Amino acid sequence: MALSSREIIDTMMADDKMSQWLGIEILDYTPGAVSLKMTVREEMVNGFKVTHGGITYCLADSALAFSANAHGIRSMSIETSISHLKKVTTGDVLTVQSKELSLSRKIGVYEMDVFNQDNNIVAHFKGTVYRSGIEWEN
Amino acid sequence: MALSSREIIDTMMADDKMSQWLGIEILDYTPGAVSLKMTVREEMVNGFKVTHGGITYCLADSALAFSANAHGIRSMSIETSISHLKKVTTGDVLTVQSKELSLSRKIGVYEMDVFNQDNNIVAHFKGTVYRSGIEWEN
Amino acid sequence: MALSSREIIDTMMADDKMSQWLGIEILDYTPGAVSLKMTVREEMVNGFKVTHGGITYCLADSALAFSANAHGIRSMSIETSISHLKKVTTGDVLTVQSKELSLSRKIGVYEMDVFNQDNNIVAHFKGTVYRSGIEWEN
Amino acid sequence: MALSSREIIDTMMADDKMSQWLGIEILDYTPGAVSLKMTVREEMVNGFKVTHGGITYCLADSALAFSANAHGIRSMSIETSISHLKKVTTGDVLTVQSKELSLSRKIGVYEMDVFNQDNNIVAHFKGTVYRSGIEWEN
Repeated sequence: MALSSREIIDTMMADDKMSQWLGIEILDYTPGAVSLKMTVREEMVNGFKVTHGGITYCLADSALAFSANAHGIRSMSIETSISHLKKVTTGDVLTVQSKELSLSRKIGVYEMDVFNQDNNIVAHFKGTVYRSGIEWEN
Repeated sequence: MALSSREIIDTMMADDKMSQWLGIEILDYTPGAVSLKMTVREEMVNGFKVTHGGITYCLADSALAFSANAHGIRSMSIETSISHLKKVTTGDVLTVQSKELSLSRKIGVYEMDVFNQDNNIVAHFKGTVYRSGIEWEN
Repeated sequence: MALSSREIIDTMMADDKMSQWLGIEILDYTPGAVSLKMTVREEMVNGFKVTHGGITYCLADSALAFSANAHGIRSMSIETSISHLKKVTTGDVLTVQSKELSLSRKIGVYEMDVFNQDNNIVAHFKGTVYRSGIEWEN
Repeated sequence: MALSSREIIDTMMADDKMSQWLGIEILDYTPGAVSLKMTVREEMVNGFKVTHGGITYCLADSALAFSANAHGIRSMSIETSISHLKKVTTGDVLTVQSKELSLSRKIGVYEMDVFNQDNNIVAHFKGTVYRSGIEWEN
C-alpha cells in the first residue's frame, strides 16, 4: 500500500542517522515542500572556528530528500549547489523552507534559503533529483 | 610571521571539529592541492540507509578550505556544487584529491573527484573561494 | 563623476552587442535588480530544433551583469548555474526578473527565474559576482 | 535504424542554427566526448567590451549535447554551471574537450574546460543530462 507523505518522511527520518545527529526537527511538510529546524553545536565548527559549510549543506540536502520523496516516488539527489552567504556560529538556530521550482515525471528541481534566528539568510541551495518511478510502499 | 602550508593546515585541522568527527586524515598537501581520506561510519547514513550526501560534501568542502588556505591567504568558500555519482555505504573508504583550476588575486576555483576504495568516482565537486588578502600569521 | 544606475545600464547596453543581437529590452531596473525581455527567433534553435540553452543563459547572464553593476561598482561574473526546466521555442517571449540574495563589499549573489509568455517558468539561474571596488565613472 | 555517433552529431549540427551562428567546428568525437572549436567575433561582446559569458556557455552547452547524444539515446540538459576564469576577447580561438564523469541508464554527467589559443583555461563547465531512453533513428 502506498505510504502517505507523513509516513514517508517519518520512515526516512527514523533511518536518517545523519539528520538525527544534526538534531533536525521537522516543522512542517507538504508533498514537494518541507520546513526543517536545527541548532548548531560546538562540534560542528570548521578550521576557522565557524560552522562548517557542510552543516548547512546537510540540512538543505535533507530538506531536498524529504521534499522530493513526499510525493510518494523514491527520488535521488543528482546535483546540488550551495552559496554560503553569511557566517554561521555555534548556538545559531537554522531553519530551511524548500520550494519546488519544477516537477516532471522524471526530474524535480528545488531551491531553498537557510535562515538564522535573526531571519538573516545564511545560505542558498539548489537541488535536482531523479524520480525513479518506484513508489514508497509498506 | 607567515605560516607555512603545513602549519596552516595543521592549525585548521586542530580547530576543525567537524573534520575530526568525520575522521578525515590528511594524506598529502601542497599550496592549492590536498589529498584527504576518511572511512564512512554507520552513523552517517540518510533516510535511504545509504551515506548522506552531506558526508561527501563535507569531505570535499574541507579539501577546498585546506587547498585554498595553504597558499597562505585566508580564503572563504563562496559557492560550491556537488554531483552525487554513485552510492556510498557504511565502511567505504573515501579519498579526495583537489585540483586548482584558477587562482587570481581575489578568487580561486577548485574541482575535485571523490573516489571509493575500488577507485570508482562517487562524487564530483566544484568550489569557488574569495581570497581576503589577510595572511595566516603567528 | 559617478554614474547613476540608469547611466551604467545604458552604457553597458550600448556596448553589449550580444544583448543587442538577442533583442534584449530593459523593462525596469533598480540597483541590484533588473527586468529584461526578449523574443526567441528561428536562428536561436539547437540540434533538437528547440531554443538553444545558451539563449536563456545569455538573457539571465545579461540580467546578472546589469543588476550587479547598477550599484555603481564594476562587478564581474565568477560562477553561474542554470537549470533548464521547460522547452523554449521560436516565437516565445521571455522575461527575467533578478533578485539579489546577498551583497557584501566584495561579493554579490543573485538568482532569477526566466518565464515565457504563458507565465511558465522555463529556467532558473544563480550567479555570483566579484565586486572590483572600481566605480563606474564618466 | 539506429544512427551512428557521426550521423547523430551531423544531424544535430545541421539543425543547430545557434551553433552555426557561433561558427562551431567539430574537431573530433567519440560516444561521450567531443572536441569543438570556434573563433570569437566582434558581435559577441558584452557591456564591458569583452566576450559575453553566454558565448563560452553556448560552446560548452553544445559540446554537452553532442557528447551525451552521441551514445545513441536522446538526452536533454537538465542542470549546467560555468565558472568564467579568464577574459575572452574578439579574435580568440576557443576549443573545448568534454569528459564524461558518469553515465548511468538515465543520467549522464560531463565536465569540460574551455581553452584559448594560448592554451589558457578560460572557463570550466559542468553539465548533467537526462537520458530519455528514446533512440536516435532514421
